[in-house]
Amino acid sequence: MTLSGRPFDDFRALVHSMPEASEAAAAAVRARDAQLTKPPGSLGRLEEIVEWLAAWQGKEQPALDRPTVVVFAGNHGVVAQGVSPYPPEVTRQMVANFREGGAAVNQICGTFGAGLKVFEMALDIPTKDITQDAAMSEAECAATMAFGMEAIAGADLVCLGEMGIGNTTPAAAVYFALYGGKAADWVGRGTGVDDEGLKRKIAAVERAVALHRDHLDDPFEIIRRVGGREIAAIFGAILAARIERVPVVLDGYVVCAAAAALRAVDASALDHCIAGHVSAEGAHREVLRRLGKPALLDLGMRLGEGSGAALSVGIIQAALACWKGMATFASAGVSDKG
Amino acid sequence: MTLSGRPFDDFRALVHSMPEASEAAAAAVRARDAQLTKPPGSLGRLEEIVEWLAAWQGKEQPALDRPTVVVFAGNHGVVAQGVSPYPPEVTRQMVANFREGGAAVNQICGTFGAGLKVFEMALDIPTKDITQDAAMSEAECAATMAFGMEAIAGADLVCLGEMGIGNTTPAAAVYFALYGGKAADWVGRGTGVDDEGLKRKIAAVERAVALHRDHLDDPFEIIRRVGGREIAAIFGAILAARIERVPVVLDGYVVCAAAAALRAVDASALDHCIAGHVSAEGAHREVLRRLGKPALLDLGMRLGEGSGAALSVGIIQAALACWKGMATFASAGVSDKG
Repeated sequence: MTLSGRPFDDFRALVHSMPEASEAAAAAVRARDAQLTKPPGSLGRLEEIVEWLAAWQGKEQPALDRPTVVVFAGNHGVVAQGVSPYPPEVTRQMVANFREGGAAVNQICGTFGAGLKVFEMALDIPTKDITQDAAMSEAECAATMAFGMEAIAGADLVCLGEMGIGNTTPAAAVYFALYGGKAADWVGRGTGVDDEGLKRKIAAVERAVALHRDHLDDPFEIIRRVGGREIAAIFGAILAARIERVPVVLDGYVVCAAAAALRAVDASALDHCIAGHVSAEGAHREVLRRLGKPALLDLGMRLGEGSGAALSVGIIQAALACWKGMATFASAGVSDKG
Repeated sequence: MTLSGRPFDDFRALVHSMPEASEAAAAAVRARDAQLTKPPGSLGRLEEIVEWLAAWQGKEQPALDRPTVVVFAGNHGVVAQGVSPYPPEVTRQMVANFREGGAAVNQICGTFGAGLKVFEMALDIPTKDITQDAAMSEAECAATMAFGMEAIAGADLVCLGEMGIGNTTPAAAVYFALYGGKAADWVGRGTGVDDEGLKRKIAAVERAVALHRDHLDDPFEIIRRVGGREIAAIFGAILAARIERVPVVLDGYVVCAAAAALRAVDASALDHCIAGHVSAEGAHREVLRRLGKPALLDLGMRLGEGSGAALSVGIIQAALACWKGMATFASAGVSDKG
């Protein structure tokens, strides 16, 4: 991976050489869809979903045998700025809860038979406080991206999620660095900070972006300096999924920070991704608008853990089941339009 | 059912004596929810769904063992006005397709393990052409409502759907009669009429409502005169579900015509119902706004068959799984807010 000795440049080259969708597979899906016993277009986005699966899997018969939710957990030095109402120990406690099957995402995966993989990343060594330093060195950030690339192995659909007390602050800093405006435009209440905590979050995001302002033209530097480990890992996971032909379902506010940075490297880099849901966390709706990704679900969720993406797996399964299982006008003896 | 000899009056009495939600069951759900390993409110509408299930089942431990999609099929004399691009034989052909397992709703039910019941209602004897006559006699309409009341037996969650070539025309007439405005406000393209067909639909709805205008103050008369059998049956099914303590998921444009008429009888008559999805059929979004029912899903579907309601079953299952299966802060050893 680090052939050039400049690890970000190797990733940059990968991003610019990503494979394209299979038009042949998409056309095969459309051809069968046109024969199914329903008015054309009447399944709406369910029809688009099957075409998307086929195009990015590169299969005329798309498969959904191993849908997998992948959750990355990280800790963040910026919690020292009082940006979360929960103590940072909760990150590790929640990872244990995932392993024991007690979190929301476990129940949602269980409902739809999706797999769940949880990766904890050096929880005992939080990233540095982004208001005072870069979160990670280049070597560390690149290694974390590479780690994320490995994490999607074996899936035929991957839903990306995260856990990390304080991580809506680096996510907000990534958006502010990418999109500008005011810091307050991108900061929400996360797990539920009060008014004073919200002011501290906004101030932390302002200070972080001001500190690193001379280096934020490069999306890789944005992730390294004001991001976090789960954001870097998700960046790598999205990239690897494209290379491995695995369609991606993005979760909410934090996951999309990684996606937004990747899209800033190459405008087509998210073409294999859909947005599972729109989060209730402040700016996520505007982020999805900028990414050009209308969400499948809009249910006021703001939990993270990949929960919104995991919930959309049921929709995707139903979409594929319709396309695979429905009778055609000819086979069912149903009259087509007169 | 027809003790008074005036069948609609007996139904009216039933509507005005419907049972209320169980506040105790809802409170029990909220009490457990507050202990689960997530920030308060972070599961958004999933939290509301469980409370709704408990309140209307009247159970502190809501159940979802027998979610059932119930589809009513009817034929319509108004197809003589050229309001659908499909021939009326398709209603019976699609019922056969449901029985063979080849329709979209079969695949969606299969995905989530929901039951499917299909009731065909005198398909060989279409209702009368509403532009020339009342669709049904009072006795026939009341018998159809009573038939719909029986259809929900055995379910612990019922999704209501319909099939009937031409039935978006009587549905539009019901809305126009209930809500006024212009006929064109309520008429959409249904299964896909062309511009000329759309003009014929609008004209048919205008003529039907004009013909019956002296009798449309009463929602029962609206269903009898300008509705259809599946609309009458769904009206009965919603009412029976309330009495039997079965929460209801409404499907799209046609199902909501029955719901809208029932709500016009009593403003609280739909409190046990949620909207599974918002249809791409023209006026459905405005109808849901008037009913005060924000949809769970918004996926551009416009198929009928109960397909949008059935698709939301996965969301409801996941919501209940979270509430039942998640660990509490205490049991998982996760720190609550500091």
